[in-house]
Amino acid sequence: MTGTMDRRLRLGMVGGGQGAFIGAVHRMAARIDDRWEFVAGALSRDPDRARASAAEAHVAPDRAYPDWRVMARAEAARADGIDAVAIVTPNGSHHAIARAFLDAGIHVICDKPMTTTMADALDLVAAVRRTGLVFALTHNYTGHPMVRQARAMVAAAELGAVRVVQVEYPQDWLSTPLEATGQKQAAWRVDPAQAGPVGSLGDVGTHAHNLAEFVTGLRVERLLADLATFVPGRPVEDNSHVLLRFAGGARGMLWSSQVSPGNENGLRIRVYGETAGLEWAQEHPNQLTVARLGEAPRILSRGMGGLHPAATRATRVPMGHPEGYLEAFAQLYRDTADQIAARIAGREPDPAAMLVPTVEDGARGVRFVTAAVESHAAGGVWVDTTLAP
Amino acid sequence: MTGTMDRRLRLGMVGGGQGAFIGAVHRMAARIDDRWEFVAGALSRDPDRARASAAEAHVAPDRAYPDWRVMARAEAARADGIDAVAIVTPNGSHHAIARAFLDAGIHVICDKPMTTTMADALDLVAAVRRTGLVFALTHNYTGHPMVRQARAMVAAAELGAVRVVQVEYPQDWLSTPLEATGQKQAAWRVDPAQAGPVGSLGDVGTHAHNLAEFVTGLRVERLLADLATFVPGRPVEDNSHVLLRFAGGARGMLWSSQVSPGNENGLRIRVYGETAGLEWAQEHPNQLTVARLGEAPRILSRGMGGLHPAATRATRVPMGHPEGYLEAFAQLYRDTADQIAARIAGREPDPAAMLVPTVEDGARGVRFVTAAVESHAAGGVWVDTTLAP
Amino acid sequence: MTGTMDRRLRLGMVGGGQGAFIGAVHRMAARIDDRWEFVAGALSRDPDRARASAAEAHVAPDRAYPDWRVMARAEAARADGIDAVAIVTPNGSHHAIARAFLDAGIHVICDKPMTTTMADALDLVAAVRRTGLVFALTHNYTGHPMVRQARAMVAAAELGAVRVVQVEYPQDWLSTPLEATGQKQAAWRVDPAQAGPVGSLGDVGTHAHNLAEFVTGLRVERLLADLATFVPGRPVEDNSHVLLRFAGGARGMLWSSQVSPGNENGLRIRVYGETAGLEWAQEHPNQLTVARLGEAPRILSRGMGGLHPAATRATRVPMGHPEGYLEAFAQLYRDTADQIAARIAGREPDPAAMLVPTVEDGARGVRFVTAAVESHAAGGVWVDTTLAP
Amino acid sequence: MTGTMDRRLRLGMVGGGQGAFIGAVHRMAARIDDRWEFVAGALSRDPDRARASAAEAHVAPDRAYPDWRVMARAEAARADGIDAVAIVTPNGSHHAIARAFLDAGIHVICDKPMTTTMADALDLVAAVRRTGLVFALTHNYTGHPMVRQARAMVAAAELGAVRVVQVEYPQDWLSTPLEATGQKQAAWRVDPAQAGPVGSLGDVGTHAHNLAEFVTGLRVERLLADLATFVPGRPVEDNSHVLLRFAGGARGMLWSSQVSPGNENGLRIRVYGETAGLEWAQEHPNQLTVARLGEAPRILSRGMGGLHPAATRATRVPMGHPEGYLEAFAQLYRDTADQIAARIAGREPDPAAMLVPTVEDGARGVRFVTAAVESHAAGGVWVDTTLAP
Repeated sequence: MTGTMDRRLRLGMVGGGQGAFIGAVHRMAARIDDRWEFVAGALSRDPDRARASAAEAHVAPDRAYPDWRVMARAEAARADGIDAVAIVTPNGSHHAIARAFLDAGIHVICDKPMTTTMADALDLVAAVRRTGLVFALTHNYTGHPMVRQARAMVAAAELGAVRVVQVEYPQDWLSTPLEATGQKQAAWRVDPAQAGPVGSLGDVGTHAHNLAEFVTGLRVERLLADLATFVPGRPVEDNSHVLLRFAGGARGMLWSSQVSPGNENGLRIRVYGETAGLEWAQEHPNQLTVARLGEAPRILSRGMGGLHPAATRATRVPMGHPEGYLEAFAQLYRDTADQIAARIAGREPDPAAMLVPTVEDGARGVRFVTAAVESHAAGGVWVDTTLAP
Repeated sequence: MTGTMDRRLRLGMVGGGQGAFIGAVHRMAARIDDRWEFVAGALSRDPDRARASAAEAHVAPDRAYPDWRVMARAEAARADGIDAVAIVTPNGSHHAIARAFLDAGIHVICDKPMTTTMADALDLVAAVRRTGLVFALTHNYTGHPMVRQARAMVAAAELGAVRVVQVEYPQDWLSTPLEATGQKQAAWRVDPAQAGPVGSLGDVGTHAHNLAEFVTGLRVERLLADLATFVPGRPVEDNSHVLLRFAGGARGMLWSSQVSPGNENGLRIRVYGETAGLEWAQEHPNQLTVARLGEAPRILSRGMGGLHPAATRATRVPMGHPEGYLEAFAQLYRDTADQIAARIAGREPDPAAMLVPTVEDGARGVRFVTAAVESHAAGGVWVDTTLAP
Repeated sequence: MTGTMDRRLRLGMVGGGQGAFIGAVHRMAARIDDRWEFVAGALSRDPDRARASAAEAHVAPDRAYPDWRVMARAEAARADGIDAVAIVTPNGSHHAIARAFLDAGIHVICDKPMTTTMADALDLVAAVRRTGLVFALTHNYTGHPMVRQARAMVAAAELGAVRVVQVEYPQDWLSTPLEATGQKQAAWRVDPAQAGPVGSLGDVGTHAHNLAEFVTGLRVERLLADLATFVPGRPVEDNSHVLLRFAGGARGMLWSSQVSPGNENGLRIRVYGETAGLEWAQEHPNQLTVARLGEAPRILSRGMGGLHPAATRATRVPMGHPEGYLEAFAQLYRDTADQIAARIAGREPDPAAMLVPTVEDGARGVRFVTAAVESHAAGGVWVDTTLAP
Repeated sequence: MTGTMDRRLRLGMVGGGQGAFIGAVHRMAARIDDRWEFVAGALSRDPDRARASAAEAHVAPDRAYPDWRVMARAEAARADGIDAVAIVTPNGSHHAIARAFLDAGIHVICDKPMTTTMADALDLVAAVRRTGLVFALTHNYTGHPMVRQARAMVAAAELGAVRVVQVEYPQDWLSTPLEATGQKQAAWRVDPAQAGPVGSLGDVGTHAHNLAEFVTGLRVERLLADLATFVPGRPVEDNSHVLLRFAGGARGMLWSSQVSPGNENGLRIRVYGETAGLEWAQEHPNQLTVARLGEAPRILSRGMGGLHPAATRATRVPMGHPEGYLEAFAQLYRDTADQIAARIAGREPDPAAMLVPTVEDGARGVRFVTAAVESHAAGGVWVDTTLAP
């Protein structure tokens, strides 16, 4: 029986205490498909907040840890220890935490961008290869059925060879120096020590980069970037324009911005091939527009008949009943559960559960960022982004 | 602390076994906000399916009941018995099941339409009044933040007095005699014995009627209906046009259809007042269009600043991260949990949790249906729809 | 050579002086395709305004008439007299003016609604039959290529038998008592002496009625109406809901309103047949959405390949270059010119030029209005709308 | 009296014979507002087609010229000679023709891109300065009221300082080697001898560049381009990505493509400032979306109250009655007529009529193209695009 098992998997979390947006998202996502129970956490560096957050989440007091190092050791030692840990801290700490849990033999679900340096990224790649554990990177937009449909259509050559990719992720919430007001979400995202060397490019640009590679199945091989900081005093860029060249000859443009008023969460991708084009936008994720040359564009809907199995499989409710951000996120949790359950059962996982972004995808995302920084620093030059295999 | 408590509430379910769409929806909805644990069920009239369904949902074998009568008695007798039952069977059986659980002292969450006859509806109204229990009717669209925003705007007179209401709920999935193919969802919905005297009007029209009353805060006082059956041999209508007159003088139109190709789940409401109008569509539920006379229309987004508290409260993730059908459904489960938790704690529930449709709303929905049938049978005449208070 | 001739046709106009919206529209529409030259007019009842208006339009002083009776006689007597007159006065005067020009042997292009009484309407039908002249009624929305595409698709049974028609024409500009401010366009439209017995139903509802019949090719046989007046003191309705029954069994709803904030000029039609549905909205007229059962909806574009000839013929610029209100209006002028040129040349007109609404369409539109008034006055009853053939 | 005069202006045309798309567009545009009469032409290099085209356009035989050199001389010598010539030939011939008419003292209306070399462009700049004649470049999208509204809003600092500009103009009609089929429109556009050194960048990219400068009021000072040719054998690029830097610090991206399936004529601009953003798309030109930070986006409509005079002035029919491509084009003809009429009358033109793109705009457009070619040839480097003043 694909992807189900006698028990729910046990999930722990590092970060994500009260007031943290993304931790609550991970927990909701984990609950939706009922494959996980949330049982342990080091939810905050502040012990009181850690304790209160754990209690609110019905975590037993003895599994509400003050520190993730302690948690990794203690959970590894329990017979009923966690199957996986979700890491939802600021970017800069992902590496150390992920290493600790991998070294303790615990599968990892990690927020993006994976790390803030290439060295850290490559170290995680090595650790995952060494341990053979599951490492899931929550580029959550890949969980949308219509994103998977888009990927399957490109893979099935329904567009012909890909020529042009336009991908963008504009937001507006950092148009003013919000970080100066003490807003916590803003503060760490523009702090190079916590977020890494870039702002919008890491926070949302890496999603756009990943989405472009996920949908097209093509790797970005070279890029040329123009980074800009518009809010005075901000130490990281808040708007980036990046030219892309893909393996096989496709060209692309990537735009990330957090200073573009009117854009809430404007992730959007358009892919044009020899014979057809497609368009998907995150804010209306249940639709996928597909246009074949010489034909009227069609609006495909999540849940309709005739979609690729990868899309149909990722669907919970029928066509016309919109799924959203949490459901896409849940798909990564469901697929990761399938992968882990297969390991536990000693069988091969369903290939359909293997679309979850991996540690290698994470490393490419970090390389995307560092290459953009290099390109810009050199005055705008083409930079190679390929990784040694 | 509003709406949280030491333990999750215990949920049981009647109907909703494997293959049933709406049962799985209820369980996902109950999980999202972590206020419920699912512990008991009479999930199918087929004992094997009941058992398998329960196992899949991690229900203990002794709480996987073959029969809802047994379940009501057994759960009422347990110290750790269910706090509430969700009834997700075909319409015709709602009344008997709901009565059994109410009589056993168990709160009820019931699918719509509430019953298939006015007598049954009024009997449930009486039973709820007598027992003082919570009765939540899952007109799930009322759980959408932007629907609650719309209601709050009308209530705050931001549109002036309401003049015109256009509400519709077209679908296309019954455009052909799908019931003749043995498709189970179709079969019971067009069977008067299970679904009641109407087809589209009960299945989706009651949602439209409820939404119109919910958003405007006005009662439909009179209606005039033109029912039609387009698929040959179908014993119930599959397309209905209904003229509405509201208390206070507003006029409206309601259209329900299951034979209109291109419509997946097209619930849409438009409300026009003296000074402004608004529009909301179920398939893109995170937006609400509001137009004040003489001004450019504005597109309000779920999660943005400046919304009414009733909308903000019903929001999980920030603006630009779409919520959908399950999250709206979850809101009813969250609010119902708040109501029940308050009862358990012996305190007043948060008034904000009281927007969940009630047994009286259910009775008005049934009256809407029976009045439409009367109007049509009389050749299209205005029929009074008010209930004795 | 279809539709061209050695000379431009000569056009006169009654009404449409400076400050009148629709007169200028007719003249622009007549110019776009270069089949007409504007040479004569009785442009205003105010002699000074008539003279100034004529001069501005480059009309020779001797053909700037103070009175339409004089104009009809004088133009009929000239060797270079007008080929056709455009009547763009308030509704109440259409009949007398049209009769005068028909009696003078001059073709007529008349604004809608055609007349304010059935007697006047039938008299014009008789006059047109008697004289054999061209009578074009400017239901301008029928000139849109995608409306003609919709009609051709229905006629070709691409939707199967029509079941449901939803048509509406809401506006908001009369939400307040604008007529009390002296605004001229508002004043005559709510004056029964000039506009007839209804407000929104005549001004915009007749367009909706005509569009429903034009697209479906079906006649409205019965209707049931609920008329309302929301602005205090207004002597005509400003919001109307009408149930429709078409020949052949299709059902429909028609809504006209001038008190619905946020609606500029919201004419929209949806037609649902056994196997497909379509939707067209006036404010984005270059697109037509078509959905076949079980397939993804397609967005057809004006000018694309594969459309019906009736649509392609009515197109000036390529796909993606939007045409609008004036171009649709121009299409009626182009087709009417083709009809008249064929008469002059003594040949049969191109059947493709015969889609222009006729005097019979006008009579059905007037009957639609009077039947709605009758239905409402009787408390909401079904009224027959068929005309004797 | 602004912009009107006793007579219509006399227009001639070079190019634009039967079968040519853009010539017919210019003539329709010239007719709409009734400021021009079309009286002379050298409509084709093929004498038979020239003669037939002239006859169809009601041009007197003696003013149907076989050659534009003859036409320039003859019309300059007539007392009733043309006031202006419209040049609608392939790009490569614009310069010689424009020079001939300027030298003959005749105002020029010229299609874009203005020339295929900088030398030619600068020569025209000099000629216009020397002669003092009107030179209107038909970047027709600047004629849209909502584009003028956007420009006026930026100029009034309603967005704050501009930070980011995203402009694009994708099409799909050259996704296949259409030129190889003998299709005339395709053939000259990909022929460097007729179209210049680029394909999409000249044909549509120059519109995008002009629109960005027009709306923002800012000059592009530097660019970096990545040109690509996807259709094998095509001698010019068919997809271009260009990074932009504007005077004052704004950054931008420009994308032109003729190989992106599903895009008909997808010109779209988004401008983001410190406090607000706006978006306009050519295919739905009557709307302009404006979002102020922290407020719900508003959809402004052509013709609504409260717009800037520059937008209101360019409007013919009320809000809700869509204008399109031809009306925007007509606006350039109307404004150019106002400019020329003012010269004839010896008065200053209405400043509002001065928004028509000029010969300097044309030169900047050509520099945009040549700079992009240089940038790409150098492997992707930043190139200065400023012109000597």
